[in-house]
Amino acid sequence: MSWHDRLRIVLIEPRNPLNIGAAARAMFNFGFSELWLVDPYHKAFREARSAVGAAEVLERARVTSDRAEALGGASLIAGTSTLHGRADDMVQRELSSGALAVRTHLDDRRAALVFGSEKFGLSREDLSFCDWVTNIPTRDRCPSMNLGQAVAVCCYEIAQRARVVPELSTPASAGAEERDRILGLLMPLLEQSGFVHESGRATQQLKLRRFVSRLRLAPDDARLMQGMLRQIQWKLGHPGTREP
Amino acid sequence: MSWHDRLRIVLIEPRNPLNIGAAARAMFNFGFSELWLVDPYHKAFREARSAVGAAEVLERARVTSDRAEALGGASLIAGTSTLHGRADDMVQRELSSGALAVRTHLDDRRAALVFGSEKFGLSREDLSFCDWVTNIPTRDRCPSMNLGQAVAVCCYEIAQRARVVPELSTPASAGAEERDRILGLLMPLLEQSGFVHESGRATQQLKLRRFVSRLRLAPDDARLMQGMLRQIQWKLGHPGTREP
Repeated sequence: MSWHDRLRIVLIEPRNPLNIGAAARAMFNFGFSELWLVDPYHKAFREARSAVGAAEVLERARVTSDRAEALGGASLIAGTSTLHGRADDMVQRELSSGALAVRTHLDDRRAALVFGSEKFGLSREDLSFCDWVTNIPTRDRCPSMNLGQAVAVCCYEIAQRARVVPELSTPASAGAEERDRILGLLMPLLEQSGFVHESGRATQQLKLRRFVSRLRLAPDDARLMQGMLRQIQWKLGHPGTREP
Repeated sequence: MSWHDRLRIVLIEPRNPLNIGAAARAMFNFGFSELWLVDPYHKAFREARSAVGAAEVLERARVTSDRAEALGGASLIAGTSTLHGRADDMVQRELSSGALAVRTHLDDRRAALVFGSEKFGLSREDLSFCDWVTNIPTRDRCPSMNLGQAVAVCCYEIAQRARVVPELSTPASAGAEERDRILGLLMPLLEQSGFVHESGRATQQLKLRRFVSRLRLAPDDARLMQGMLRQIQWKLGHPGTREP
């Protein structure tokens, strides 16, 4: 498996099939092939005519409604955003340094690069899956790039980084599915405890997913945390009892 | 005059108005505005609908049949080519080093970046105007990029060279006292739940302190975590009650 195949490009709710085709073509140009689409607006995107040379990427593209599935085993998830205000409380990295981190990560682990829809960018929910947000340094007056071009620039930068000596690697961290499992244990616990209220549930879930992402848990720690949460959950259900 | 305005993007015989629009948009994204077209195939290119945010670049674009006029006062002219065979006798530079040379030149002189048509690339005649040829390092199997994407990647690289990339600061993480407070909340919770047993208490405490350290919690997250733990602790002590 080439390091290229460990990178997923994830397009969330892309609206224009031409942009999907353009993204596929840019991926193909720079050697990437794992394209995932979350709820594309047009189901017939594979017919996008602009996809010269990218037919095989489009053909293999996977469609889902489940963000965690699209992100799969990626243990480094970088959002791309130019809607500055929305991601104020997230770690921001410029593309050049972000690309280096992604490239280094791909040496032996999986990563995902997430792009929002042409119209709305990444939502707060989408961002809650991400470790950080990559900024393509466009000028202030005109931050928003065309989707296909943004994918091209990002793929170029990551492929480009393959040619420089990588820095020290960042330690492995749990993938999106693992993080989702932790969140799935944490939420009911906090609901029962009254930390999360019914009214603010959705907002809190976003906040907590981002909290879990920021922990950047190593796989062993992710398992440890799940064990703790399961045990506390059990205890909450059996207040008078000794442990099982 | 900004250094941006000393760069001309010259498209030779572009065929698809969408690509001209895409080129204009990418230029606008990265702060460039001098677009020249040599014999565009469609005269009505200004109506290209893909040119979101790039209307003013398109509007100002100049059309000519004269390559020399399009290149104007540029004293550094870089062709872009992926049709390898054709430019064998020209100096080739990779985009990253080429972009640096162009950017430096733009400090006080004019430069032009020349793109061939989607179908044929740059002809030998076109290349004869150029000082050297810039290669975008696509993979061997798929050298040819979409015109709009190629312009985007080149504009990105040149604009990028203008920036002193700031060193990333590592985010602050909670200090030892804060971590100890978290551990002080976590331990009794895990003891009551039966995750930590009396016999292995000391060993478990060490293990959990290291776990908490590895989280490298930001100060806000440390507070968030303490809040969650306190609430769960309260619930364990008041099994039948609603939250306070």
